[in-house]
Amino acid sequence: MTHRNAHAPAPARIGDPLSEIDTPALIVDLDAFERNIARMAAKVSAMRASGGNASLQLRPHAKTHKSPDIAARQIAAGAIGVCVQKVAEAEALVDGGVADVLVSNEVVGRSKLARLAALARRARLSVCVDHPDNVRALSAAMVEAGASIDVLVEIDVGAGRCGVPPGEPAAALAQQVASSPGLRFAGLQAYHGSAQHLRSVAERQQAIAGAVGKAASTRAMIEALGIAVPKITGAGTGTFELEGASGVYSELQAGSYIFLDADYARNQAASGSTFAEFEHSLFILATVMSRPVAGRAVCDVGHKASSSDSGYPTVPDIEGAAYVGASDEHGVIRLDQPGVALAIGDKIRLIPGHCDPTVNLHDWFVGVRAGRVESLWPVSGRGPGF
Amino acid sequence: MTHRNAHAPAPARIGDPLSEIDTPALIVDLDAFERNIARMAAKVSAMRASGGNASLQLRPHAKTHKSPDIAARQIAAGAIGVCVQKVAEAEALVDGGVADVLVSNEVVGRSKLARLAALARRARLSVCVDHPDNVRALSAAMVEAGASIDVLVEIDVGAGRCGVPPGEPAAALAQQVASSPGLRFAGLQAYHGSAQHLRSVAERQQAIAGAVGKAASTRAMIEALGIAVPKITGAGTGTFELEGASGVYSELQAGSYIFLDADYARNQAASGSTFAEFEHSLFILATVMSRPVAGRAVCDVGHKASSSDSGYPTVPDIEGAAYVGASDEHGVIRLDQPGVALAIGDKIRLIPGHCDPTVNLHDWFVGVRAGRVESLWPVSGRGPGF
Repeated sequence: MTHRNAHAPAPARIGDPLSEIDTPALIVDLDAFERNIARMAAKVSAMRASGGNASLQLRPHAKTHKSPDIAARQIAAGAIGVCVQKVAEAEALVDGGVADVLVSNEVVGRSKLARLAALARRARLSVCVDHPDNVRALSAAMVEAGASIDVLVEIDVGAGRCGVPPGEPAAALAQQVASSPGLRFAGLQAYHGSAQHLRSVAERQQAIAGAVGKAASTRAMIEALGIAVPKITGAGTGTFELEGASGVYSELQAGSYIFLDADYARNQAASGSTFAEFEHSLFILATVMSRPVAGRAVCDVGHKASSSDSGYPTVPDIEGAAYVGASDEHGVIRLDQPGVALAIGDKIRLIPGHCDPTVNLHDWFVGVRAGRVESLWPVSGRGPGF
Repeated sequence: MTHRNAHAPAPARIGDPLSEIDTPALIVDLDAFERNIARMAAKVSAMRASGGNASLQLRPHAKTHKSPDIAARQIAAGAIGVCVQKVAEAEALVDGGVADVLVSNEVVGRSKLARLAALARRARLSVCVDHPDNVRALSAAMVEAGASIDVLVEIDVGAGRCGVPPGEPAAALAQQVASSPGLRFAGLQAYHGSAQHLRSVAERQQAIAGAVGKAASTRAMIEALGIAVPKITGAGTGTFELEGASGVYSELQAGSYIFLDADYARNQAASGSTFAEFEHSLFILATVMSRPVAGRAVCDVGHKASSSDSGYPTVPDIEGAAYVGASDEHGVIRLDQPGVALAIGDKIRLIPGHCDPTVNLHDWFVGVRAGRVESLWPVSGRGPGF
């Protein structure tokens, strides 16, 4: 299953100038991308040194990119492994050479559990649980395959999605995991998803302070049962500096930092924070396909090339230009500067509103440096992820 | 390039019961699907017989499904061919055996025009134009390939997207097309995209009356130049009965009727209209992966398995259940009936908010009849469409 999307035709060839890339295409500014990787590595080193947690690790979320090529670069810069959300993503990454993968999600159903168990025989695998039935099914699948897996109890620290409540229910589940064959209790997942895009620093601080408290008290309750809690994992690009400084979290799952989308860029950064130092490295290359009136250009990027769940893409390179409407295959760009020179056939860069679901629409990352295509990486784990 | 997504693993095998389909999966209720095809064929026959236009044709939009398997069934029921929006879709459909394809869109750029010309040597191909420069480039590409193509002048009848203004500018472009080597002037495209989801019948009637008037007067202006206007093409699932009855339109491009999504179902139908008779035939099969509290279930269908640009999916089979929040890989379902039996591992059907971009997230249609998988059709043209 390695690089299964390598079967899809690519929108460019290595060495092509930017002007020859066919559109819509997902392009990666390799210089900015590498700076983002280096900055995050430096941040995590600094957090370790500052004494919050000397063994703090970065495990970037690969649901953002679904690419073993990108995962390899994150790991080379010090990441301990990656997270994914789906078994299909885990398969694509292990097939692509990643040796340590956390499925930061519940895996449900016999077929998926069997695939997870098969994968756990080939790589260091971890997974989350939030229900006793699921723990039993997971254990049975591991025993049947002769495999074992690290298991994190997911607690709901405020996101209102999956996860058991902190405290007693989590401790009970940890006990069940610790006594289940094929499962190694590995700690807690305490990811506060809905805190990531709170716009003000103060709101994010308050949300993560609550998450830290719940994770710490749950850990204490489990330890009181005589069960070690090897790790507490969580955090995203919006808040990782807070979890990293907490002394409670031992692993950071930030993923979007590598690309930085338009929605994350709307977060306010703390003074002195390096959050604002990440750069947009991911762009959708679009072609102007119609110039029906002076104030309007229509490009070839719509819903099928750019996710709109967190707002439309932005148009960074053209003053007074705003992407104001998407249909399936078209994007309508309003031009406030009537004199702007934008002709049919011109290529323009868009910054995606939300990087993860936008990447999932494409089959290839086209890596660009100094105006030329340097790399073609398939979005190996692309798809709905069954 | 035939069935290029056939390389992706499928979520089921032929003969599987519904319970064995892996999720998220796109499932087609084949009985409802076939009834939709038959109903549309009957509608078009009735419109022909009623005298609006005795040669009225259906050319369903295949941007909805991107599948030669589905196109073949539409054509077998009387459709003259299909529409697509992208050259990549046209390639997938021609490779899959469709002989007559209209790219109902402008095609821009040397590489795409060369591919379009190559395709025009293998099938009856049509394309739209809305600018003199594009006409010149299209003609040059056809001449270079020794090919010829039907060309429609696209007029903006109210959608505010692509298209020249009706009247003089369209007539001038028609003249240019008619005198350009490699191009056959085939008429007008007059698609009123933004009218499709106007909720009331009266609003849709008013919008299409305007479109019909613009198309008719533009046709008259072109005919006055001594140029025949062989067809006027347009219409979608929201309005096709209006264009079909107009006596002006000769070809209907409705596509979504085959699946009917939740957004189209919110349109009001006219009394006596058969619009409301189309059925939901496309569903996303989801698995409940978490039941953290009594009033909440979390399923495995989020932004990467269901487009949210026209609202979240609906939950047709569970009373008091509403899909209230999506993240990338999760859907949060609120349960208003606290007693509802919905357990981890249960599979539920969702009706997509918007079928076209939802289909584009998946690699396979799983055709189901009487509770078993009967067909597996790849979404052959899936992708951003470069």
